[in-house]
Amino acid sequence: MQLGNVIVGQSGGPTSVINSSLVGVFKTAKDAGCAHVYGMRHGIEGLLSEQYVDMSEYVRNDLDIELLKRTPSSFLGTCRYKLPDFKKDEDTYKKIFEILKKLDIKHFFYIGGNDSMDTIDKLSKYAEIIKSDITFIGVPKTIDNDLAMTDHTPGYGSAAKYIASAMKEIIRDANTYPNESINIVEIMGRDAGWLTCASTLSRSEDCMGPDIICLPETVFDFNQFINKINEIRKEKKIITIAVSEGIKTANGKYVCEENRQSMHEDAFGHKTLGGTALYLADAVGAELGIKSRGIVFSTLQRCASHLVSRRDITEAFTAGADGVQLALQGGTGKMIIFERISNNPYQLKTASCPASAVANVEKRVPSEWIINDNSYVSKEFSDYARPLIIGELSPFMVDGLPRHLFID
Amino acid sequence: MQLGNVIVGQSGGPTSVINSSLVGVFKTAKDAGCAHVYGMRHGIEGLLSEQYVDMSEYVRNDLDIELLKRTPSSFLGTCRYKLPDFKKDEDTYKKIFEILKKLDIKHFFYIGGNDSMDTIDKLSKYAEIIKSDITFIGVPKTIDNDLAMTDHTPGYGSAAKYIASAMKEIIRDANTYPNESINIVEIMGRDAGWLTCASTLSRSEDCMGPDIICLPETVFDFNQFINKINEIRKEKKIITIAVSEGIKTANGKYVCEENRQSMHEDAFGHKTLGGTALYLADAVGAELGIKSRGIVFSTLQRCASHLVSRRDITEAFTAGADGVQLALQGGTGKMIIFERISNNPYQLKTASCPASAVANVEKRVPSEWIINDNSYVSKEFSDYARPLIIGELSPFMVDGLPRHLFID
Repeated sequence: MQLGNVIVGQSGGPTSVINSSLVGVFKTAKDAGCAHVYGMRHGIEGLLSEQYVDMSEYVRNDLDIELLKRTPSSFLGTCRYKLPDFKKDEDTYKKIFEILKKLDIKHFFYIGGNDSMDTIDKLSKYAEIIKSDITFIGVPKTIDNDLAMTDHTPGYGSAAKYIASAMKEIIRDANTYPNESINIVEIMGRDAGWLTCASTLSRSEDCMGPDIICLPETVFDFNQFINKINEIRKEKKIITIAVSEGIKTANGKYVCEENRQSMHEDAFGHKTLGGTALYLADAVGAELGIKSRGIVFSTLQRCASHLVSRRDITEAFTAGADGVQLALQGGTGKMIIFERISNNPYQLKTASCPASAVANVEKRVPSEWIINDNSYVSKEFSDYARPLIIGELSPFMVDGLPRHLFID
Repeated sequence: MQLGNVIVGQSGGPTSVINSSLVGVFKTAKDAGCAHVYGMRHGIEGLLSEQYVDMSEYVRNDLDIELLKRTPSSFLGTCRYKLPDFKKDEDTYKKIFEILKKLDIKHFFYIGGNDSMDTIDKLSKYAEIIKSDITFIGVPKTIDNDLAMTDHTPGYGSAAKYIASAMKEIIRDANTYPNESINIVEIMGRDAGWLTCASTLSRSEDCMGPDIICLPETVFDFNQFINKINEIRKEKKIITIAVSEGIKTANGKYVCEENRQSMHEDAFGHKTLGGTALYLADAVGAELGIKSRGIVFSTLQRCASHLVSRRDITEAFTAGADGVQLALQGGTGKMIIFERISNNPYQLKTASCPASAVANVEKRVPSEWIINDNSYVSKEFSDYARPLIIGELSPFMVDGLPRHLFID
């Protein structure tokens, strides 16, 4: 069966494996006989100004496919663009469908998080109204693991593997000195602490793991924090702590706001976070009079493709590939989801759900997994997360550095 | 020939490959027939309170040797301890030689930087005075690459490889968004900018590299910095900048001091640096009204053993091994150095120099390599540094994470 033309876009924050989903869509569509797979530059925002490429011009052979899997960040570029309500601004929708018609598109794929699923939901509903037969499918992506309906999200496993590996190395580094020290590591996560929880996966035969974690699911109290540290100091000299960048005090203020001269807001009015660890390290150091250091993983946790989870790469590909299969069966307005059959042995299957069930919803760490006066997570978390970080995919090294595929 | 007992210690800041030098000493000494190779816990400071181990209890077979090569940070623990002048405090020296005698030590090895070479120098001179036949040999180590006499230092190549790889990934990440942004990356280096220079190795066929670098070898001026950024903004939207944590303004003040409520000092009176990138990102963002982000590589650049340079690992081993050969030939009061024969093909030989020539000296980036109004380095730098980041050594992965060897 001949597949119609396909267009695919990437949206929101990048991950280390978002291009593996792109490859999953591209390869499956081409194998199914699709003449053209177009890629939107910078998502739907770029599409609106007719910025797109024919993917075959850039992904020319199997080597390029493998290189693209190993390329971090969004190959096609990304955007943070929220589609207006079509009742208020139908022109934007007309323009999109005009461009899709011009390119003879039959299937539209959008790789992203909950904002992107809002886009899929709106476009598929508009298509129904205007009786367009174009299908719209969402492919899940986010390091934050905060998407509803799905067991977990492509991108999380690799970020978790990076965080747990880096945490082991940092703990090894901190423990080389004989003197007391407090090492505070700042991890991404505005409202959900999944990534900070991943730091506890470093606890293993050869590593104690972090001593305390602070999640945005709980309220941060400086005095309790100091008390907890003092309790641990009775037993050990080198203390490591993982904190989410989005932790807030009881008055609803971000902890990092204490330390910044100004905080910029993005297009959605989200404050640019950062500085939590450095602020806390200074404050704890001053309070206790011992050496303290703030360490920030920053963007590397979402783009360190030199240390991805093989399982994550494979699942990200599958999410894209199964999205194409779903479209071929006529599915639209849906997102691919993962359903876990068992932890041990790890078994997973893909399914789908309405994109509307994912749009604008956030999944947080279950409160029953948060233990020890909000300072750690239970075994349920590692049973859930450990399978997601298994396996490696070697980068292609050229002149000593990982090689990437790129446009331009 | 039967070698006498050996003792080896690690001192100063850890690196990703300092344990490869330790293995070089251990394996070469054992192969030469040495009965016991002792390891000082926490360097000379630990030795003074008789903290040591018999290395054979922890490194039991060839698998352990390979695991130890892949273990970051100082396996034996480290210290920052400066030996007193023996004329002022001979007791400390007497105590050290008593312990060495008790363990029947014939050869003493110390893996470290310029402070450690001060220790080697002082101990060897005292040995001469008291007519002890114990030999004292230094094995170079530092990510900072600031040791005199040697072409480069074990530890630098791996830190440079990590920095250049992470820089590529960060640039890829930053370029996924369509909007203007300034991304400022903070890299270790108090007085020497070798590590910040390494970020320029990311410039290659698939990456533009950083647009500006700021080194501690030059004076930082905020207005010049803004002018340079504005110049680049005419040509491109996404700007990446690498800054050394130790950059100072014309009044001699650290740039990061602008942003800290307090700055702690270590035992040597060195201020704990950090916060340069976050401060500059806030200041540039406020000045230019565009999105800006501070990114800090922090301790990972010295302990990311999951991404080491194979050449660095091999050379670190060689430095340890050749230290033992030098001791066997009766050498003392010396440090192993590298002499480069050629860049292309890369050829190197080891030699030695008096430890006193290295102690308390710092090698900075040559001023003739610093170009473009102090905002970049010339091709001489990449010709020098590129060979040092070549090759990889896969970590041993267990349950999805790198495995380490450890004491306790």
